Amino acid sequence: MSTQPYPAFFSCYNQLDTPFLFVDKQKFINNLTRLRHSVESFGTELRPHFKTVKSLHALPYLLPDKTAPITVSTVKEAELLASEGYSNIIYAVGICENKLPRLRDLIGRGIAVRVLLDSKEQARFLTRFCLLNQCTISALIEIDCDGHRGGLTPDSPDLIEIAQLLHQGTVELEGVLAHAGESYHCYDPVSLRRAADNEVRTTLDAAQRIRSAGISCNMVSIGSTPTAHSYHNLNGITEVRAGAYCFFDLVMAGTGSCKIDDIAASIVTTVIGHNTERGWLLIDAGWMALSADRGTAHQPKDCGFGLVTLSNGELVEHLQVTSVNQEHGIITAMNGCSINFDAFPIGCRLHILPNHACATASMHQHYHVFDTQAQSYDIWTRIQGW
Amino acid sequence: MSTQPYPAFFSCYNQLDTPFLFVDKQKFINNLTRLRHSVESFGTELRPHFKTVKSLHALPYLLPDKTAPITVSTVKEAELLASEGYSNIIYAVGICENKLPRLRDLIGRGIAVRVLLDSKEQARFLTRFCLLNQCTISALIEIDCDGHRGGLTPDSPDLIEIAQLLHQGTVELEGVLAHAGESYHCYDPVSLRRAADNEVRTTLDAAQRIRSAGISCNMVSIGSTPTAHSYHNLNGITEVRAGAYCFFDLVMAGTGSCKIDDIAASIVTTVIGHNTERGWLLIDAGWMALSADRGTAHQPKDCGFGLVTLSNGELVEHLQVTSVNQEHGIITAMNGCSINFDAFPIGCRLHILPNHACATASMHQHYHVFDTQAQSYDIWTRIQGW
Repeated sequence: MSTQPYPAFFSCYNQLDTPFLFVDKQKFINNLTRLRHSVESFGTELRPHFKTVKSLHALPYLLPDKTAPITVSTVKEAELLASEGYSNIIYAVGICENKLPRLRDLIGRGIAVRVLLDSKEQARFLTRFCLLNQCTISALIEIDCDGHRGGLTPDSPDLIEIAQLLHQGTVELEGVLAHAGESYHCYDPVSLRRAADNEVRTTLDAAQRIRSAGISCNMVSIGSTPTAHSYHNLNGITEVRAGAYCFFDLVMAGTGSCKIDDIAASIVTTVIGHNTERGWLLIDAGWMALSADRGTAHQPKDCGFGLVTLSNGELVEHLQVTSVNQEHGIITAMNGCSINFDAFPIGCRLHILPNHACATASMHQHYHVFDTQAQSYDIWTRIQGW
Repeated sequence: MSTQPYPAFFSCYNQLDTPFLFVDKQKFINNLTRLRHSVESFGTELRPHFKTVKSLHALPYLLPDKTAPITVSTVKEAELLASEGYSNIIYAVGICENKLPRLRDLIGRGIAVRVLLDSKEQARFLTRFCLLNQCTISALIEIDCDGHRGGLTPDSPDLIEIAQLLHQGTVELEGVLAHAGESYHCYDPVSLRRAADNEVRTTLDAAQRIRSAGISCNMVSIGSTPTAHSYHNLNGITEVRAGAYCFFDLVMAGTGSCKIDDIAASIVTTVIGHNTERGWLLIDAGWMALSADRGTAHQPKDCGFGLVTLSNGELVEHLQVTSVNQEHGIITAMNGCSINFDAFPIGCRLHILPNHACATASMHQHYHVFDTQAQSYDIWTRIQGW
């Protein structure tokens, strides 16, 4: 990672071939600081989800303390974080048996990697694996707080049975974990607050039920970017997880979790054609650069495949990317407006704000990180694969 | 690329951590052969589009003759193909000025890289660039045959003006190029045939108009995977381009361009959870492995985020992936059916057929290529970035 001082700053931007992923470093840092302060003000720990930024170069900003907690979505992330010295990891996808050998190797190196489960089958193969391999793996039981995906409701009979299975075996039951994934469909502060309160209450209920059965449950982990910005009481919650908050995106702006101006990642693209008859600007960013994510499709404001800003970050209110192919995008004027083609000549650069930062970032091997304050430029490499 | 003989074949499959992209090599080769034979039977050349497979390891099958024509969607592809000795390339995305220096360097090495344009602005900066750099760049004018994206209609006054601008400058006007992108919305042989005929006729009309103005137009290039399988007369067409045909996918099956059994690429995933109450199988393949492409959403048969097969390729008729997050997918039974959870225990492997092979393949660094006939296994690496 080489930091090039001004005047390389501007020439780098212009010399980079489009499309590329631009990170506004100051916005990125502000987003990190905002949530960390908020969560820590409740006396609770933040466990950032690495899945969004997925770059070792981002770690000095995301999590400077290597003993601090972090969440991952793949074993590969866990392995690379471990190689950087990070030692407190949750692999937050339901565990399957064939991923255990790689995790055992990490645990053998002294890395605390906790796994997630919500079934007796998983509890059984985990116990069996630990016994056969003479190792201890810590596990969290996934709690379903809103019907989003996996997990058990606090009143599920399986909850206590799984806790007992683990408790009797060589698996250490560390606690419970919930993710209020349905909060992505909240669009006002009242529903967000309700989703946040529900996530807290449901997860605490589950922890309480386990403890009532005489089994310890130290960790009570919750989080999603929308709820993480909407808590008002975290008593009993030991940690909050969130990922998309580092970059933010149009889906998050749609939930009210950020302003559009907080979005720290955008795709820089070049206008490669005009279709004056149909009112289209053709750009060299298609789904290969933007992703095909349509996360705002069901929000009150549908942003197509992304909104448009100028290089200085100024939103071009009436434009959006309405269609994408592999390496082509089409920008159209919305709400009865028309495009002033002279203002967007062939060759000019625009930025496209992503619907979903995790998805857009995943399409890129590198982030081009510009610090407008320090006038510096870095390249951050992204982790790929599983 | 190491070819491991049987019995490594089966153990490789089982040892690979999910999710991964599985290529059925025999189906891949059959798909390549089928279209090549069909196009060549018309006395016309096939110019495969590299954008789908994007792997140098695939070249011995896709295009064994290095002097034969190939299409690319990025300058990076052109550079890597050139480094492998391929010398007859079309960069089939409207050209912008800042991509010219890299193309000039390729042309200087004796690689014929043709660029695409549809505006006088592009003709002017291309002419200026060639003059300043004392080089010759060959260009094709993009023809719009169905309102899909870029290009000029044959009756556009700009067509002749651009041809004249190029003809007078140091840019060599090589011909015209069209892509019947709207044929992706055809769902029966009659509409496909109509789209194919229209692509042929429109492009020939444009070539004829240019020739009538006293300017040569040698190359008449057309193609899209659906139309490429539906021509009945290619007189006057010098080449056909197609990309997705190598893997095929559910969108192409929906157009009738292939059978579901022809699909050569699938994502191998593990069942990581059961939600018996909601009727969900949770799998470890989300949009990160499958892509968020919803290309079948507007087809008569909407396949969600993909259809499900067993490891042996057998389609599980009533199942589809109905929801994806980053590393999670949810499989649901459709049409009033219910899931037999005992048939899909936690830990079992399934294959997900992609909506759009280009998009799904783009999510992977490697393809795991299994030849069921030769009982061999290869890893093919994919080109990434721009």
